[in-house]
Amino acid sequence: SRSIRLAVVPGDGIGPEVVAEGLKVLDALGLTIEQTVYELGAAYWHKTGEVLPDATLEEIRGHDAILLGAVGDPSVPSGVLERGLLLKLRFELDHYINLRPVRLYPGVGTPLAGVRPEDIDMMVVREGTEGLYAGAGGVLRKGTPHEIATQESINTAFGVERTVRYAFELAARRPRKKLTLVHKNNVLVYAGDLWARTVDAMAKEFPEVDVDYCHVDAATMYFVSQPARFDVIVTDNLFGDIITDLGAAVAGGIGLAASGNLNPSGAAPSMFEPVHGSAPDIAGQGKADPTATILSVALLLDHLGLADEARRVEQAVADDIIERQGAWAARSTREAGDDIAERVAG
Amino acid sequence: SRSIRLAVVPGDGIGPEVVAEGLKVLDALGLTIEQTVYELGAAYWHKTGEVLPDATLEEIRGHDAILLGAVGDPSVPSGVLERGLLLKLRFELDHYINLRPVRLYPGVGTPLAGVRPEDIDMMVVREGTEGLYAGAGGVLRKGTPHEIATQESINTAFGVERTVRYAFELAARRPRKKLTLVHKNNVLVYAGDLWARTVDAMAKEFPEVDVDYCHVDAATMYFVSQPARFDVIVTDNLFGDIITDLGAAVAGGIGLAASGNLNPSGAAPSMFEPVHGSAPDIAGQGKADPTATILSVALLLDHLGLADEARRVEQAVADDIIERQGAWAARSTREAGDDIAERVAG
Ligand SMILES: CC(C)[C@H](C(=O)O)[C@@H](O)C(=O)O
Ligand SMILES: CC(C)[C@H](C(=O)O)[C@@H](O)C(=O)O
Repeated sequence: SRSIRLAVVPGDGIGPEVVAEGLKVLDALGLTIEQTVYELGAAYWHKTGEVLPDATLEEIRGHDAILLGAVGDPSVPSGVLERGLLLKLRFELDHYINLRPVRLYPGVGTPLAGVRPEDIDMMVVREGTEGLYAGAGGVLRKGTPHEIATQESINTAFGVERTVRYAFELAARRPRKKLTLVHKNNVLVYAGDLWARTVDAMAKEFPEVDVDYCHVDAATMYFVSQPARFDVIVTDNLFGDIITDLGAAVAGGIGLAASGNLNPSGAAPSMFEPVHGSAPDIAGQGKADPTATILSVALLLDHLGLADEARRVEQAVADDIIERQGAWAARSTREAGDDIAERVAG
Repeated sequence: SRSIRLAVVPGDGIGPEVVAEGLKVLDALGLTIEQTVYELGAAYWHKTGEVLPDATLEEIRGHDAILLGAVGDPSVPSGVLERGLLLKLRFELDHYINLRPVRLYPGVGTPLAGVRPEDIDMMVVREGTEGLYAGAGGVLRKGTPHEIATQESINTAFGVERTVRYAFELAARRPRKKLTLVHKNNVLVYAGDLWARTVDAMAKEFPEVDVDYCHVDAATMYFVSQPARFDVIVTDNLFGDIITDLGAAVAGGIGLAASGNLNPSGAAPSMFEPVHGSAPDIAGQGKADPTATILSVALLLDHLGLADEARRVEQAVADDIIERQGAWAARSTREAGDDIAERVAG
């Protein structure tokens, strides 16, 4: 079988710990994998003053996929690593789909009372290369009483259209076939109008998909009061960022939330990472839950066309969750990876 | 006693129904009130093509306070009434503080499992006159494949400083004395930096206040997993919009969430409104819960220096909630207003 060229970016904080377990599970599948590890993140920045050298980015491009742990450290000014590494990879590799499943696995405790696994099963399609994340903006008269700081959200028909199309195609393949646009089009009238017009126009191509709209503020309410309302959600970069953290929380915690930064064209490698951050407070203690990374590995396998392997990983996680109910505190990051890898190996 | 000149804007949907109950409770206090009712909203727009005539705005200015129901109707394009009426009032009357208590009243059901009233007791200080709400932005090549739509967030030292100061003063008066800045300064670096620098600088003036920072995405997680983490939150206009709807949901629903759009300088009347929208689906059926409006009336009384009256209204609501536990469905909007007004009258 074909070998998978995998670029691994363990990153900061708990990143290396959870990535190690993701790789362990990947190994357990018996696939042939050529790994290149890129030691980027806070330590690299302190040592070299660089975040992501151009040559490294070019090397990373030559892989089939990227597995990333987490980025960010209190010793580095906020934004430097996030923008220079994580967002740079998303933008340079044109990861225009940020796919984030929000699913309550049976056996997982949710903070919501009376919610059952079947009530929380959505896919959030977050646009990944535009909006307020474009980095446009500036500051004038900094540090004076007359300072003005701006941030600009840039939205293009090109970027919105391809994201909305991906979301419709995904919704059409799911049993409920429901697509909800989440935005704030009563205030962000220009961008909101572009998103809404794009969804409305494309709805004609997908008559089987039931289309809905929800303001982002109301969406956060429904996430806790009526999560079953949602199937596939399509939304912009910032709203997607916010609601997927909330989604992780209602679906049992950030320790389980996986994501794929996809370039569906295949022109550049897609990148898979847990939704959680680097959690410097618990780094190096073997306390991090590697499940989110392992589920991100399942998304990676799916993306590479290895659907059977992806299902095996997901099933192993699902079985592991059922078995360990309530007993998590007793298990280290490594033990969790071992347990899941063992199930995968069968 | 001095008479209160009150401008009343019932608005759309359930707005008129809930405002009627708010006024009923105000009457029950025995204050002298001169009301002027302004019939603005969808019907007015359909009839006149205008949303808020300049002359009406000038008249409204001459009042001590404004009580607003809700704005927005499906028959009007999204944004027209929101921007032309609600946001116009907020901006023209310089309501730079949008104050939104998030409090779980004893006896209220929260969707969160195992959360007690003492775990949810925060005040969100949302900036009200800047950010993405400034309305800056535009569209180029509309309707073509090359369309670009932008939205600009405008943040000034002037606007941020006065909001942060209000939040520090509020935090200093509360028992926990904790202030959390909620932003996204790892991505919105210019605006986030202005907010963070402003908070850091002012912290020196308020050494008794414990200062914290939280990204908006993480904040939504903590709202459901650890709401007790927060006391006073200060945040920008859009993040405040989002987290206060979520706050309403975790604190038992949008039917209870009150807000004040404050101009603390007193140069223009402040405006009080429930956080909920016009809910056209249940309008005119006597199904809306007027409690959020009645609690907004309590904020109005507080703002006018009538602290005793404000406490009476709040106490009446708290007692009413305890008494009606679980029996809400049986009571109409009007009956709810009657019950609370009766308690207020003593
Ligand atoms: C670290 C940060 C830049 C990133 C984002 O905002 O996209 C993170 O929150 C995420 O959701 O992947
Ligand atoms: C109706 C809308 C413009 C408004 C806002 O976004 O501020 C509402 O959601 C609110 O929170 O008061």
